Formats: sequence, C-alpha cells, structure tokens
Amino acid sequence: MSKPHYALYYWPGIQGRGELVRLAFEATGTPYVDVARGPGGVAALKRFLEGHAPGMLPFAPPFLVEGELVLAQTSAILAYLGPRLGLVPEDDASRLAAQQIQLTLADLVGEAHDTHHPIASSLYFEDQRVEAKRRAHHFVRERIPKYLGWLERLLERAGPYLLGAQRSYADLSLFQVVEGLRYAFPHAMAAEEKALPHVVEVHDRVAREPRLAVYLASERRLPFNESGIFRHYPELDPGRSR
Amino acid sequence: MSKPHYALYYWPGIQGRGELVRLAFEATGTPYVDVARGPGGVAALKRFLEGHAPGMLPFAPPFLVEGELVLAQTSAILAYLGPRLGLVPEDDASRLAAQQIQLTLADLVGEAHDTHHPIASSLYFEDQRVEAKRRAHHFVRERIPKYLGWLERLLERAGPYLLGAQRSYADLSLFQVVEGLRYAFPHAMAAEEKALPHVVEVHDRVAREPRLAVYLASERRLPFNESGIFRHYPELDPGRSR
Repeated sequence: MSKPHYALYYWPGIQGRGELVRLAFEATGTPYVDVARGPGGVAALKRFLEGHAPGMLPFAPPFLVEGELVLAQTSAILAYLGPRLGLVPEDDASRLAAQQIQLTLADLVGEAHDTHHPIASSLYFEDQRVEAKRRAHHFVRERIPKYLGWLERLLERAGPYLLGAQRSYADLSLFQVVEGLRYAFPHAMAAEEKALPHVVEVHDRVAREPRLAVYLASERRLPFNESGIFRHYPELDPGRSR
Repeated sequence: MSKPHYALYYWPGIQGRGELVRLAFEATGTPYVDVARGPGGVAALKRFLEGHAPGMLPFAPPFLVEGELVLAQTSAILAYLGPRLGLVPEDDASRLAAQQIQLTLADLVGEAHDTHHPIASSLYFEDQRVEAKRRAHHFVRERIPKYLGWLERLLERAGPYLLGAQRSYADLSLFQVVEGLRYAFPHAMAAEEKALPHVVEVHDRVAREPRLAVYLASERRLPFNESGIFRHYPELDPGRSR
C-alpha cells in the first residue's frame, strides 16, 4: 500500500480544531496519517513548530503537510481540501459561501474555548473559574443563539444543507460544533435546539452518513474531555436557574 | 465616472476590522464605496444583516458587496481581493501562505479586542475592567510576543516581506496590527519592538508607500478611538511596573 498523501498534525488526546479536519477525511474515506497520535509523532509536530522542518512555519496546530506544502489554520486547510475531496460545490460563489460560514464557525469555536479560559490559555481553568462562569453566562444567553440562529436562517433560505443541495465541509463542521456545544452545555443546548430544527436536521444527516457513523463509533474518534476546546464544567451550564 | 465596482459595508466611526479591507483598496488605488459612512449607509448595512437583501446573509460586518456577491469575514474578503488587486503573488503556495498568515493576524486582532472585553461584547468596558486588566496582563506578556515573534521568524526566513519579494495584503494587515497595538499598548510595544526589527521594517515600508501615506494623512483614515478594536486604556498597559 502506498503512503497516504495527507498528514495531519494535531495534539493527541483531544478532538480540538483538528477534528474539523479529521471529519473531512473520514467523511470522504480519504487516507491520512494522524501524525501526533503515532510513535514519535509529537516530536515530529514540535519540529515544525520550532522551525526545524522545511516549508512554512506554522503558528499552531492543526496543520496539514502534503509534499512541500505546510498549511496551518483550520479554515485554510478546509478551503484547500474542499475542492480536492469533493466537499464543496464547483462554483466560486459556493466556495466563497463555504469559506465565510467556516470562518464564522471558527469564531464560535474560539468563543467556546474562551468560556473556560477567559483570561489566559496559559492559566488553568481553576485559576479563572470566576471569570469563566461570568463569560459562559453571556456565551450561552447571547452568543450561542446568535451563531446558531444565523445558521438556522441560512438553512431556511437555502437548505437542506448550508450551501443548498450538496453537503459541504461547512456542514461537517456544523455537526462538530453542535456535538461540542451539547457536550459542554447540555442544559443550554436542550433549550436552544427547539428553535433550531434545520440545524439539528443537518447535524443528524451528517451523523447518519455511513462512513461517519463508522468513524464516530471507532477508536479513531476521541471522546470529548476537559483538555479540549469543548469542556463540560457543570458550573458553566447551570440550566434554568440562571 | 462609473460607479465603483466594490462596496464595503462596515460600522462607521471606527477602523475596526474594516480597516484591513480599506488598506487593500487604498494601497492599490482601487475605487470603492465605504457605504455606511455615507447618507443612509447604516440603514443599508442593516438591511443585509436583517436578511432583507439578496445573496448571502452576512453574520457581521465587514462585508463586501460586488454585484451579486455578498462576502463577509475579513480574511475571506482579502483572500478574494488579493489576486484581483495584485496583492498576492500568482502561485498557489504564496496564496495559501498569505491566507494562513492573515488568519493568524485575525486571531491576534480578536485577542486584542478581548483584552477590553474579556467577559462579553454586550457589556461595557467599565463592567469588566477588573477582568480586562487581568487578561491584558497575559496578552501583553505572552500573546503579543508569541504572535509578533512568529511574524519576525517568518521574515527572518523569507523577507523583506512576509511572502518574500512581493508585498501582499498580509503585509498591509501587519502594518495595521502594529499600529493598533502601538495605540493600545504603547509601553508594552516600545519594549517589545526592540526584538522585532523585521516586523518594524515591514510596518515602515508599508507606511511609506505613496498611496498609503496620502491615505493615512487623509480624513478617510479614521483615528483610533475607544469604540474600536484597538483601544487605549492606560490601566491595561501599565508599563515596566507590572
């Protein structure tokens, strides 16, 4: 067997932003190496970050390596892979739409991270839990409805997928964001999803794709945990009493 | 005279993320309409946000309108305009490099915003100043060096510009980020820049471009202020005593 074409570099042990790239490979049955989960992989990843590898110096994982190409930033990776893996329609308008949706999902992911790290990524959650509780309160009440409500409106205007008839990488990321928010904020999401029938429908359609159903049940799919971007701290999702 | 091809929609009164797009137009002498700064412009902008305009529903300004295209997300706008305005080299590798740099600068801009709004954009600064001081402390000590140090290393490896010989939209955004950080954190930046000779050199080269020099001295260039993304609150930049 020939070596897979694509190498993904991301921290092992968490889904994180790397999962948005994994889903693109898994949904299309594209062979890839998840480098840092293999022997010596973290050292290989660090060689890139420390500037000891050729090509572009990535700012942070995830990054994709394909031959001489070194490409960081999740949304850039997906914009690159989209046409190659058949994960975006052919026309320019659809590709631009996919990219702006993806970038907005990336902003949502960043804000979800900052609910548990509102002061600094370098500090433990325990050292910023008071601020985290305050930020999460606003995130749940203002930001989740704003972001997911926007996706719902996009789906009302087009549908059944975000770009219309064809499922794209943006739909895969929508799936992941809904999964992550459900894990982190189960009370809030249970209430919120009642107003988001189209978003839930896309999530469910993606989850039912045969390749993804196999992946999601496999060991390759890491569980959510409290080292990742979507973390479940009950105090940040107190439910109705808030 | 014919109507300009490009319409930029962004909140009036602040540089904000819209400025990254303005610099692309101004650096290349490309005619554009800065819609929301004209009569009825804010109402026109809101028509898009409220879904009363055709085309893609933008999540937030800035967005670009060109014929039927409605394109939000600053980095997506620049990736689109780059080849059209001659602001990125022709080859795919350079375009991918420009995009990943731009996305990283966008992350830095987002973190700069969150120094004064670490809890919620919906609250006033005064309602989150204690948290802001704490977040800014870490931003100045950890994040500015990490982001700008990465740019410095890119320039050491290539140079004189971020992509090598040709100045790109990423260099224009580097200029803006340095300007914004100097405005917001003058003490921190005065200390930090000593380790960033290449970054400062790119900033200065961009500032000296004849078209941009004219623009920067014009009324079209809005001043920084405490409604924008880069804000100067002295308590967030206490200098050496920290």
